Amino acid sequence: MKVEEIARLVGGHREGDGNREITGVAGLENAGPTEITFADGARALEQAARSHAGCILVPEKSSVGGQTTIAVKHPKLALIQATEAILAKAKLEAGIHATAVIAPGARLADVYVGAYAVIEEGVNIGARSSIGAGAILRRGVEIGSDCILHPQVTIYPGARIGSRVVVHSGTVIGADGFGYVFADGRHHKFPQLGQVVIEDDVEIGSNTTIDRGSLGNTFVGQGTKIDNLVQIAHNVRIGRHCVIAAQTGISGSVEIGNYVVIGGQVGIGDKVRIEDQVTIGAQAGIPTGKIIRRGSAVWGTPARPMSEFKKTHAQISNLPNLAKKVKELSRTAGKQGSAK
Amino acid sequence: MKVEEIARLVGGHREGDGNREITGVAGLENAGPTEITFADGARALEQAARSHAGCILVPEKSSVGGQTTIAVKHPKLALIQATEAILAKAKLEAGIHATAVIAPGARLADVYVGAYAVIEEGVNIGARSSIGAGAILRRGVEIGSDCILHPQVTIYPGARIGSRVVVHSGTVIGADGFGYVFADGRHHKFPQLGQVVIEDDVEIGSNTTIDRGSLGNTFVGQGTKIDNLVQIAHNVRIGRHCVIAAQTGISGSVEIGNYVVIGGQVGIGDKVRIEDQVTIGAQAGIPTGKIIRRGSAVWGTPARPMSEFKKTHAQISNLPNLAKKVKELSRTAGKQGSAK
Amino acid sequence: MKVEEIARLVGGHREGDGNREITGVAGLENAGPTEITFADGARALEQAARSHAGCILVPEKSSVGGQTTIAVKHPKLALIQATEAILAKAKLEAGIHATAVIAPGARLADVYVGAYAVIEEGVNIGARSSIGAGAILRRGVEIGSDCILHPQVTIYPGARIGSRVVVHSGTVIGADGFGYVFADGRHHKFPQLGQVVIEDDVEIGSNTTIDRGSLGNTFVGQGTKIDNLVQIAHNVRIGRHCVIAAQTGISGSVEIGNYVVIGGQVGIGDKVRIEDQVTIGAQAGIPTGKIIRRGSAVWGTPARPMSEFKKTHAQISNLPNLAKKVKELSRTAGKQGSAK
Repeated sequence: MKVEEIARLVGGHREGDGNREITGVAGLENAGPTEITFADGARALEQAARSHAGCILVPEKSSVGGQTTIAVKHPKLALIQATEAILAKAKLEAGIHATAVIAPGARLADVYVGAYAVIEEGVNIGARSSIGAGAILRRGVEIGSDCILHPQVTIYPGARIGSRVVVHSGTVIGADGFGYVFADGRHHKFPQLGQVVIEDDVEIGSNTTIDRGSLGNTFVGQGTKIDNLVQIAHNVRIGRHCVIAAQTGISGSVEIGNYVVIGGQVGIGDKVRIEDQVTIGAQAGIPTGKIIRRGSAVWGTPARPMSEFKKTHAQISNLPNLAKKVKELSRTAGKQGSAK
Repeated sequence: MKVEEIARLVGGHREGDGNREITGVAGLENAGPTEITFADGARALEQAARSHAGCILVPEKSSVGGQTTIAVKHPKLALIQATEAILAKAKLEAGIHATAVIAPGARLADVYVGAYAVIEEGVNIGARSSIGAGAILRRGVEIGSDCILHPQVTIYPGARIGSRVVVHSGTVIGADGFGYVFADGRHHKFPQLGQVVIEDDVEIGSNTTIDRGSLGNTFVGQGTKIDNLVQIAHNVRIGRHCVIAAQTGISGSVEIGNYVVIGGQVGIGDKVRIEDQVTIGAQAGIPTGKIIRRGSAVWGTPARPMSEFKKTHAQISNLPNLAKKVKELSRTAGKQGSAK
Repeated sequence: MKVEEIARLVGGHREGDGNREITGVAGLENAGPTEITFADGARALEQAARSHAGCILVPEKSSVGGQTTIAVKHPKLALIQATEAILAKAKLEAGIHATAVIAPGARLADVYVGAYAVIEEGVNIGARSSIGAGAILRRGVEIGSDCILHPQVTIYPGARIGSRVVVHSGTVIGADGFGYVFADGRHHKFPQLGQVVIEDDVEIGSNTTIDRGSLGNTFVGQGTKIDNLVQIAHNVRIGRHCVIAAQTGISGSVEIGNYVVIGGQVGIGDKVRIEDQVTIGAQAGIPTGKIIRRGSAVWGTPARPMSEFKKTHAQISNLPNLAKKVKELSRTAGKQGSAK
């Protein structure tokens, strides 16, 4: 793809050689003469001058002396567009591997299935979806079109997954929730009969676990992105376009709104409600039943508003001073007392 | 199953139509006229009046106008009993899938084995156990009767598992513990030759890891329930009827008593001893070698008694006030000094 | 193997029966008359007097009355050497299982491959490496010699792994990093085109996730040991001979030096730089962009120097006293005021 064509595609302003052929994508430091990269921010633009990249996407009104650049409003977003165009998506091998075990009643429309995948009775998979090697789709699972299930994904019976969903290896969807009733000196398992429902355009990382609902459903809304090793318990409801970083744990019946951003290793207690556009800092802990109001940012355990957390932290750091002052005051007070 | 029969089964007091046929189980909000549900607590009982459920399990001495109810001591427990009766457990497909690889010396008594499961030499599986698709049982693994190993479970050589144990997908039992000796500028692996022993009635969630002992064994006692993504290190000993929530990590040689309840994302350091009936709040951290006394409840990092933790937290929140007061006192003291 | 031979092997000083035959290894409490064990520290040496072990490795200049012992500089290290000699490494079954799916272009030199493993086009595996049952090596993966990949490991296309690397079950190497650009009300996936490069002598636990780089590579240096359920994000660079305990999460583009020791459940924010020989306490949290200086030890969230953390913690525990003192001072100050 020529630089000129890429400039047109991303709607940007080109400087330098429009005829240069671009065949790959790389980072600013490593990109070679047939690769495109991007530079955003003062430091990156400085580095860009020394880059060997064939073409650099830069912010509007910036240019880099001696380099072929395309100036756009959002260079990182433009790189996404350029990448999709340059690397025409790796064509999936067509067809179904001879070793895949597919139940007679499963319906697969123009689908790729890898070696040793197991697709049980009543499964329904939409067009152009790809089921990786060793993946297991149990009875009645529904998968939309254009999905990618990477190797070794396991989906328990009845889960429903939308279109353009990506699930990475080792992730388990629809296992029983963790619910017991304690009686007669032991834990009795509460029925885990609900489903997992995942909407379109969701991406789920590796080795994540999303449990089925106990009586209702566990739900993940459209466009939400979930990282590796995340735990989503039974009956959790997550809205649209959220981002949930690695190793976060979300307890039973938590409700999360839309456009919520959750850092890594966050813990959210049972029945917490998190409203739209909330931001939760990494490792924060939100106690059972709490409500986090729309648009707020919280951090710490138990989680407090970010500004309060920072203030408190500063005051904790200042404790030695405070203690010293109190000691002085006590001494002075003692002297005053004895002076009388 | 008729409402009358369910009432007899759970030993409850029926009000309303005893002849109604119940074929399923659902939540209070979604249950329809052929489904049973439960209501416990004032708010749920209020909701119950508007429910379309065919039958509602309620606490003793409560009734819900216009509804068919069964009053019992413990509605949630009664729902468990009713569910087991109504949904006669989904019959497992009989037999062994043609693609399962089973070593000639393995002994399997009336067992279900899914597609592409691998069962190595010397494995012994008790009656009515179910080994899911793609599960791998290595040399000499022992499994009791009536177990369910879901698809993709991996069990390393020699682990011993009791009866009625459930293990969810992606869980790895018996991998090497994490033990090294540092010498000559590198880490030398310490022998990991012990076993994992899991007693009867244990349930283990998805993608959990339980390492083998280094020289002794790692042990999980009867009736203990372990959630998803939990880490149990080498030589840990866990007692009976404990509950361990998701993403908790238990370091090497920790000893845990009976009836211990551990919240999510708790971290327990090497050689900690936790006595019977302890409760540990979510995200707590227990430093290496600590002893947590019988029946206590702890929270925070480093973990302190729950009441102390709450008091401390209140005092931390009050730090701005305290700092202000000290400032005022300093000013007053200064004035008094200058007044003299 | 005779005690005398073991003494020669580990370069130690024997006391007692040199002709005794040793066939196994066990812990101090359980070792029998044909087993070797070790005792280090006063308490263990006391216990050693009552041991039934055939031979006990003890520190130089110590002896245990009535026992056959070998005195060495480092007993635990000597046990590692003895174990390797006594338990001649379990011979791997030779050859490739008939059910393994191996692409015609894959190159395997004298390798063991288990049942239902899948090895795709362009994979290259060095001599004496072992690929467990159900493991999946995607296009172009490179594995050195003498590696052990346990069952159910998944490696995405193009990852490069050195020699003598051990990877435990359920671990996923090379899945897409978690990078999105938010625009037009949704998250656009940033290209994840880099690789994972793992050097020689690395060991990786179960169900760990190591993501590929987005544009550059994710890198793990020689001799580094990684525990279970660890998350390593895209473009992370980890040096040589580090130890990373279970459930730790390392965010994107973090740089870690050599000989770094990281406790369990640590969280490290984006672009943090950790210099050589740093120690990080369990559950610590290191905020985005921080630099932790060479040789320092840190703990807490946000992480502070260990000594400061402990001091601060003591001061927090002393808050009730401090508050009481301030109250008294206020009362006195009030009286003084009113006395005037």
